[in-house]
Parts: sequence; C-alpha cells; structure tokens
Amino acid sequence: MHTSIATVSLSGSLTEKLTAAARAGFDGVEIFENDLLASPLSPEEIRARCADLGLRIDLYQPMRDIEAVPQEVFASNLRRARHKFDLMRRLGADTVLVCSSVSPLALDYDGLAAQQLVQLSEMAAEFDIRVAYEALAWGRYVNTYDHAWRIVEAAGHPALGICLDSFHILARGSDPRGVAEIPGEKIFFLQLADAPLPAMDVLQWSRHHRCFPGQGGFDVAGLVRLVLAAGYRGPLSLEVFNDVHRQADAGSTAVDAHRSLLLLQEAVGTAELPPPVVPTGVAFAELLTADAEPVAAVLAALGFTRTARHRGKPVDLWEHGEARILVNTAADRREGTRLAAIGLASADPAAAARRAQALHAPVLPRRRAPEDALLDAVAAPDGTELFLLAAEEPQLHAWRGDFADLQDTPESACGTRVDHLALTQPWHHFDEATLFHRGVLGLDAQESVDLADPYGLRRSRAVANADGSVRIALTVGAAPADETVHAAHIALATDDVVAAARSFRAAGGRLLRVPGNYYDDLAARFTFAEGELEAYRELGILYDRDAGGTFRHCYTETVGRVFFELVQRDPGHHGYGAANAPVRLAAQHAGRLLR
Amino acid sequence: MHTSIATVSLSGSLTEKLTAAARAGFDGVEIFENDLLASPLSPEEIRARCADLGLRIDLYQPMRDIEAVPQEVFASNLRRARHKFDLMRRLGADTVLVCSSVSPLALDYDGLAAQQLVQLSEMAAEFDIRVAYEALAWGRYVNTYDHAWRIVEAAGHPALGICLDSFHILARGSDPRGVAEIPGEKIFFLQLADAPLPAMDVLQWSRHHRCFPGQGGFDVAGLVRLVLAAGYRGPLSLEVFNDVHRQADAGSTAVDAHRSLLLLQEAVGTAELPPPVVPTGVAFAELLTADAEPVAAVLAALGFTRTARHRGKPVDLWEHGEARILVNTAADRREGTRLAAIGLASADPAAAARRAQALHAPVLPRRRAPEDALLDAVAAPDGTELFLLAAEEPQLHAWRGDFADLQDTPESACGTRVDHLALTQPWHHFDEATLFHRGVLGLDAQESVDLADPYGLRRSRAVANADGSVRIALTVGAAPADETVHAAHIALATDDVVAAARSFRAAGGRLLRVPGNYYDDLAARFTFAEGELEAYRELGILYDRDAGGTFRHCYTETVGRVFFELVQRDPGHHGYGAANAPVRLAAQHAGRLLR
Repeated sequence: MHTSIATVSLSGSLTEKLTAAARAGFDGVEIFENDLLASPLSPEEIRARCADLGLRIDLYQPMRDIEAVPQEVFASNLRRARHKFDLMRRLGADTVLVCSSVSPLALDYDGLAAQQLVQLSEMAAEFDIRVAYEALAWGRYVNTYDHAWRIVEAAGHPALGICLDSFHILARGSDPRGVAEIPGEKIFFLQLADAPLPAMDVLQWSRHHRCFPGQGGFDVAGLVRLVLAAGYRGPLSLEVFNDVHRQADAGSTAVDAHRSLLLLQEAVGTAELPPPVVPTGVAFAELLTADAEPVAAVLAALGFTRTARHRGKPVDLWEHGEARILVNTAADRREGTRLAAIGLASADPAAAARRAQALHAPVLPRRRAPEDALLDAVAAPDGTELFLLAAEEPQLHAWRGDFADLQDTPESACGTRVDHLALTQPWHHFDEATLFHRGVLGLDAQESVDLADPYGLRRSRAVANADGSVRIALTVGAAPADETVHAAHIALATDDVVAAARSFRAAGGRLLRVPGNYYDDLAARFTFAEGELEAYRELGILYDRDAGGTFRHCYTETVGRVFFELVQRDPGHHGYGAANAPVRLAAQHAGRLLR
Repeated sequence: MHTSIATVSLSGSLTEKLTAAARAGFDGVEIFENDLLASPLSPEEIRARCADLGLRIDLYQPMRDIEAVPQEVFASNLRRARHKFDLMRRLGADTVLVCSSVSPLALDYDGLAAQQLVQLSEMAAEFDIRVAYEALAWGRYVNTYDHAWRIVEAAGHPALGICLDSFHILARGSDPRGVAEIPGEKIFFLQLADAPLPAMDVLQWSRHHRCFPGQGGFDVAGLVRLVLAAGYRGPLSLEVFNDVHRQADAGSTAVDAHRSLLLLQEAVGTAELPPPVVPTGVAFAELLTADAEPVAAVLAALGFTRTARHRGKPVDLWEHGEARILVNTAADRREGTRLAAIGLASADPAAAARRAQALHAPVLPRRRAPEDALLDAVAAPDGTELFLLAAEEPQLHAWRGDFADLQDTPESACGTRVDHLALTQPWHHFDEATLFHRGVLGLDAQESVDLADPYGLRRSRAVANADGSVRIALTVGAAPADETVHAAHIALATDDVVAAARSFRAAGGRLLRVPGNYYDDLAARFTFAEGELEAYRELGILYDRDAGGTFRHCYTETVGRVFFELVQRDPGHHGYGAANAPVRLAAQHAGRLLR
C-alpha cells in the first residue's frame, strides 16, 4: 500500500523532514500546517521539493474549529477555508483534514454540523479538494468515529468523507467493528499511531510525577491545615517520586524541597517569614560581555544612548525611554555575552532581601566597591543576580549614583520600557525556578505552555506582578539547548512596533526574517487594516490576538546568548506570543535575518 | 515544625542524600529501604552519620503487603517484620510505614486486616516502634485514608496509627475533611507531595506519547484489517506526536517509522516480507579493543581458553563450554573496549538477512577478507553488528574455518554458555530497538521495567526466542549514561554460580562488592539452606526468586565499556534480576569490588 507520514512525526525543519521521509521509503507525506508556516519555502517550492523526492502530498492538516458554529462565525471560517484551499492548490494537495470542533462556540447540533460541512465541501469541490472529517478524542461534542460518520453520512456530499485515526478510536476504547458499516470509498484517509498502555494510571502518576508542594495542582496547604486541626504534631515530611529529581543534583533539589516546606508552613501559619515585597518594576537589565562592541551596536540601533559610566567598574549604562541596560565588560572572553543580572524596583529592598535569605536564596555581596551604594542582591536558581533596588524617592536610583553621567538621558520615545525578560532555565530546575519567583519575589505564575521548537518541545511559564510592570518568562527544554536560539532575551515595550522596527533597521539593526507562509496564514485568520499586514511582512513582525487585545512583536539578531524583542502589547493582553514561538524558533535555528 | 524528607526524593547515594538534606536545613529524613540496601554503610554507621549531620530518622519505609492475608502467609510476614524491627533498632528509627497491601493474596476483610495489624503492632511495641498504616491510592482493597483509619480505629492498638500522604488522598479526589474525625495523636505521620493536574488526559496522551504501530499497546493491526475490509484503499499514514521523536534525528526516526508500517502491512496481509528466521542460539560475542590484555585477563579468570586465532585479522577466539568470545584488537585506542558484534545461529542465515534488508537494516560487508567465509551481517539500530550464522551441519561454524586452532577446546565446564547479552541503547531509539529485534529477528519482547539507578531512572526491556537460548536485554536511561556503569555486558550461564564465582576469584578475577544490608534484607525475605546466604555474601551474589524458580547472579569488574555477569538460572525463571538492579547499579557507580 501507499505509505505516508505526517511531518509532525519527525524532528527538524520541513526540508529535513521531507528528505528523511523519502530516504526511508515513504511514498507520501501529510503536511502539518505549522511545519509549512515555519518554512522559508513557498508552497510551490515545497510542492517541487516533494516531487523531486518522489513524495506525494497526501494530506494537508489540520483545519480546526470549522463546523457547528453560529452563522457569523461560520462565515469567517469559510473565508479562512478559502485561503487554505487556495494554498492547497499551490501545494498540489487534494485532501484536507478537518478535525471536529473543540471551540467553546460549537453547538451540540449534528444537523448544523452536517449542513456547514456540506457548504465547506461545496467550496472544496471548486478546488478539486476532498474534505476528510475526523473525530478528535477530545472533540467538544463529536469525539467518536461513529458520531463523525453519522454526520458525514447525513451530509451526503461527494467531496466529504471521513478520516479515521487509530489513536482517537483506540484511546477512547471505541468498538472498532463499527468501521465495517462505513463504505470504503467514504473513508478518505487513515492515520495510524500506537500508544503505550496505560497512558497514566495513578500508580505511574505517583511514581514518576510527584513534585514539591506549590509546584503542582493539589491543595496541599488545605490538607495540612486539616491535619493540624486534627491535632497532629509530627513532622512535615516530603515524599516525592520524580524522574527529574532522580537525575538532578541532590544539593539543589534539597534546597528547593526545603523552600517549598517553608512556604507551605507560611501558608498554613506554622512559620512566619518576612512578608513578600513584590517588585514594582524593572530598574535595569545587566549584560555581561567581554566585547561590548556588538551589543552596543544593537543597543544604539534600538535607540539606546550610553548615558553614564560606573565610577569604578567597566560598566556602562544605556537608556532608552524607561528602559535601562547595563553593559558590563568584566566577562571572561570565553563566556560570550549573556544576561547576568536584573535590577528590580522594590518598596523595601532590605525586607525583600530578608525574605529571600529566609527562603534559601544565596545573598550576594551587596557592594561592588567600598564607595558604591549598598545594594541588596540575591541569586535566582539559574544564577541570574537579582538586585533589589529602592523604588521610592529619595532612594530611587541610589544605584544610579555609582555612575557618572556621560550625557543627558534623551526624552522618552514611544513609551519604551522593558516589557519582559525571558530566561532559559537548566531543565532539572524549572519547577524550582517558578516556585522561587513566586515564593521569594511574590510574583504570580501563569499556566505553563508547550512551545514546539523544531528540534524538541520546550515548556514556558511566565511570572509577573499584578500590573504587569515586572514580567519574567521562564523556559526550559528537555533537549540540550542551542544557546544561540534558546538565549535569554530582553523584550522592549513600545507604543508602535512598526515604527520601532523601521527605525531599528534604518539604524543598521538586523531583524529576524519570518517566512511568507506565516503571513498568508495571518491573512486567513484575521482581517487587517489597509497596509497593516504588508508592514508586518516587511519587518518580520509576528501577530497574536485574544479577548484581551493584540500582541505584536519582532526579534533582533542574537549577540552571544542574548537577543532583543520589540513588543507592542495591548493593555489587556497578557501573553508572550506563544502561538508564534514555533515560527520564531524555526527562523532562529535557521539564522534567517531580514536583508 | 520539624521538617523531613524521604531519601527517595533526592538523587545519588544515601550519604549524598543525607548531606544534601542536612545542608538544606531539614531536621530529619525518612530512610527509603532501597537506599539503605544499596548503601555500604551499616545501619549503625547510617545512624551515626545522621546524628553527625543533625538529622533525626523520622521514618523507615516501606513495609509492604503485610496485612489481610492467609495465616501461613502472615506468619512469614511477621518473620520479615521482626528482621526489619531489629534493623530499625540498629538504625535508631522508631516509626515504620506499613502501606496497604497490593498483594493478590490479600483478602477483602477489614477484620482480618485489623487483627493482623494488632499482632504486628504487638511485636513492634517490643522494639519501642510505632506502626503507621497508610492507604496506597492503588491498594488492593484499602486505598482511601478513611478506610485505613476505620481499620486502625477498629484495631485500637497504642502502637498503631495512621500515616497520611497528600498524594494518595488528593490524587484519588477523596474529601480531606474527614481528617477532622481522626484524633491527632493517632496520626503518626504526614507525608507531603504535590502533583501536576491533570496527570494525563487523552489530549496529553495524544500530544506527547503516541508511538509507531507495534511500539505501544493498541491493536492497530486489528483496526487496519477492519478498515481494509470496509473497502478503504487510500494511504496508510503515520501521525505520531511524540516528545522523543521531536528531538531525535529525523533520518533514523523515519526509518523506524517506515519499518513499523512494513511490519504492520505484513500483519494485515497487504505486503509480503521474507518470513522471520528466529535465531536459535548465540554463536559468539565479539569484543573490540585496542588492548587485549585487560579483557584477556578477565576471560582467563572466568575459565575461557584462547583456542584459535583468525587467519587474516587480529581476532582471537576464546572458548569456555559453549560460550565463545572473539577479541578483536583492531580498535582505535581512543574507543576503549566495547561489545561490537553478536553472532546469532540461524537455520537460514541468507533468508534472515533478506528479511533484515527488507526491513531497512543496513547490510554490512559480508566478507572480512577474500578467503574468509561468506557471512550475512546486519547492523542493529545501536550499531551492534549482528552476524547471522548457519546453525546446521555442515555449515555449522563455517565462520570457525577462518580461524586457525591454537589448542583444543577444553571440556565443557559447569554448562557454561551465554545466558544473555545486555546492550545500552541511545535513548532516542529505545522503542526502535525493541521493534527491530522483534520485527527483524523474530524475537519476543517482555514488558519493559523501570530500574532505579541512583542517578536517574532507566528502562529495560528484554527480547528472547522461545527456548531462551537467545536473550538480549535492551536498556536506556533519560540521563546521559555513565559508560562504565551503563556498559554493555555479557552474562554467562553456569550450573553453579557459587563455584564459578569462587573459581573466578581464585584465578585473580575481581567481583562487584555488594552491601551487607542487601543480605540482611535477603534473610528477611527468604529462607536459605545452611551456609547458602553466607556464600552469597562472601561472593557478592545477588538473588531473586519468582514462581518460575530462582535467579542467582554476580558481576565482574568493568573493562572499558564491558563487564561480565555470572548467572545461575532455574529453567522456569525468565527474569534478569531487575529487582537487584538498584543495588547493583549503586555498587557499580561506587566502583566497589570485593577484595
């Protein structure tokens, strides 16, 4: 039989995946949409590459959240579908996978699903495309293959058939014998996967995935309160079976563990800690480098001005609006440029440091030189130095007194300030880092999200204060990190990312090049003002939108182990562009910059 | 409050764990039994170490499968308990964790459970020990804390209380408010752990843990048969979301993927492959080294004789009984000694090679020199060369003709032959290796088991032919492997492991030293003939027993990346000593050899 493989099943760039599939003897591929979006090849070039390799494009996938929705939503879905059918024609793909809706807008109404799938199939037929409808095991209303088949049968359209996926059928424990009732010609596609059984029972969960209190989803504190209320006076003891801790350094795991018990005791009231002093802003970010020249060039292009120099150390202060970056050239040449320290504005630095110390954060030497200001500083688990700096006058910028002015700070431009800092964590210590930032600094943690790097999955979790003036994104990957791609980065907020990006380029800065396929997809998903999308395409600006507003962002070249991001964030948007991360990471791996 | 941590929560040796816990500020520890067994420190030395570090031993754990069993089983359980209470007295631990039974022998009878727990607590009280009874979330009959409490309350013994564990309570979704009904003084211990929620839903299962057909637990072939019977004639397409494949080399993943589809098609009858020719024995194992001296010394001590030398290559044949080992000195000096090739006896080597080739196994050059015998050889995914050799006369030992005799093969001693070969796999390719050995060679795979290496979990899965004359254990770890510990090894079967071990030592061979705590535990678990256990203790022989019989084994020092195991296996025993692996691996990490 004709054999095929979905590109999502393989690691790497789309061209690497296609080559590997062809060499292994596959006859065709399913093109996974995200792989296409992240590829610099146009649809025509991908089609030609497949033809050269002797691969047929058997399927384009997935098209999501199409059916059983209110009519105005469906109108926009059809518009999106037309874009994709056009893309498929360019690609030479004749079958599209439509998976059952998971949208909260979807209605539990098979008649509507069938009717809208007929409309979709009518349009598909104009492009000589077939629609293969698949029940996702977690579909909102349609989640079994027999349900999907009832809808397809009721629709009765020649361009509409069913896609069967062994995972979705067998993972649900559906009786597969019902397949016999489906006419073979209406089974448009068959996707195969196996999976280990049992996926995860409570025994596996317990043996491999326990974590320290505050790092998971249990209300451990609530339970401890009940146990204490019952009169228990014995030890609080941690018993955590965890595959990661089995490999990690025992010393730092033990510190992480004990910190979690201290925070738990604070929560249940059996121990008192100095209360958290939540930082109120990012005073500065400090880059450590042996050679200031490359990073200075990027900073200058970004609009930063070198305004001051430390009186006793080889440290320059660069300012742009409210964003301040220290460039410290005391690094060993082999280290490369890296983000070494963060200055956090605090209503009470000494109290914040006392809490950090009580929670096992190493307190760092507080003074760089005898004549320097006294600074409270602690080390985060990843080694980043956190300086705790007075935010109130007259102490405001006490640290600034250690610097001699070189020239006046220019006027604030475009509201530039630090939007967020992104720090790559050593993978054994991701949960520790999150608990540290929550427990020690009093920041709130968002849910963690998966980011599909082409060479391995990464996890990201952001911590922030309530007004978003301090945001830190922590990321980690199971794979050894490519330090130029998985570098730390500094995201600068601006009121106008298009203007900021143009100005950066005009000053000689180089921005990350984003594939054209990405912008074709944006055009299918959103409507834009005249010229808006063209500007994004020209400048490599990525775009995301949710109920809270839009998020526009672009990336600079990487210097050593640091790069910069320009961000235009609507006040109600609290994301970090996770949806765009696969495209961004692929472009960074490929090292593609705008010319 | 007094804070404590179970040693199982940390990585490393017991002494590393204790040091880390003390440094982080813990007041006490739970000693996890396996950590004690793997430690070279005696209970008294552990007690002293804890005292020096300011750690109290708050708990000894776990005691398993004690209660609600038939009386004769309980008598043996009490005997085991007495050993452990004695150990705890030496250790200075006053509370033992008894977790609810998971044994198939357990009865659903709370009255019996209470009665036997009273008997156990009576005995514990003699040692001034308290028994903390805990409901495991997967206990056979007792799996909720309120059920465990009803039993403890009914038992009404002062030395018997309950142990509460946040994981077991919250993972089951039990209402924790029932804790209020338990008198505080009857809560003997509180164990804390958090866990991510949801542990694993079908969406997570699908996105991260799919695998290729034949590598999981689904009946994918059964489904495909139904789909074909329905008349489907489209592609067979793989759609596999898998975190490991996302990181692995796309080329080898694609080969693995295509092989799985070929085997699937063979299973459903849409493709024909040359049928499998199951190997019937291990003809030889070949070691590649730059310096034959160290390995030759070990082989000689094991009783091997150098019987022949290859006519054209720097390869010696060593024989002992039916075990044959080739020592090839053509290695680059930097490579170190490694297990490079396996000779498998086959009823039809050419047919076996045809199947291997059809399943993408690289076929290796079949002839070492023009005058050498024609050999069929393929490469396994880990690079091990598999020679397929005629097992029938007159071709038997055709390969042997390439060797010139040096001296006669000595008489077979103690039935020595190769019991099994253990190969460490690159971690991205573990499932591929299993499918290769099953699909290409026609071997059967056992269930995979977890092995707790002190520095990270490992997985092991054995493949074997029906009569056990070919057994290969494949192991993999998530952590980078320590190549001296996670070396390949050759296990030699003997009829008398005590005699073989003695003879090896007498000849100057060095065996792995096994901690005394391990033998104290054996004494608690099994009864031995007079002098039997003492012999094991003297020689570092490990012991396992199941319904199929006993398995006795010991390990030699490691040479480069190879070591040897001596095995005495009852015919009905099909294991590989997995239960002893944590102790063995810890001893190998520590590099402890018998003097």
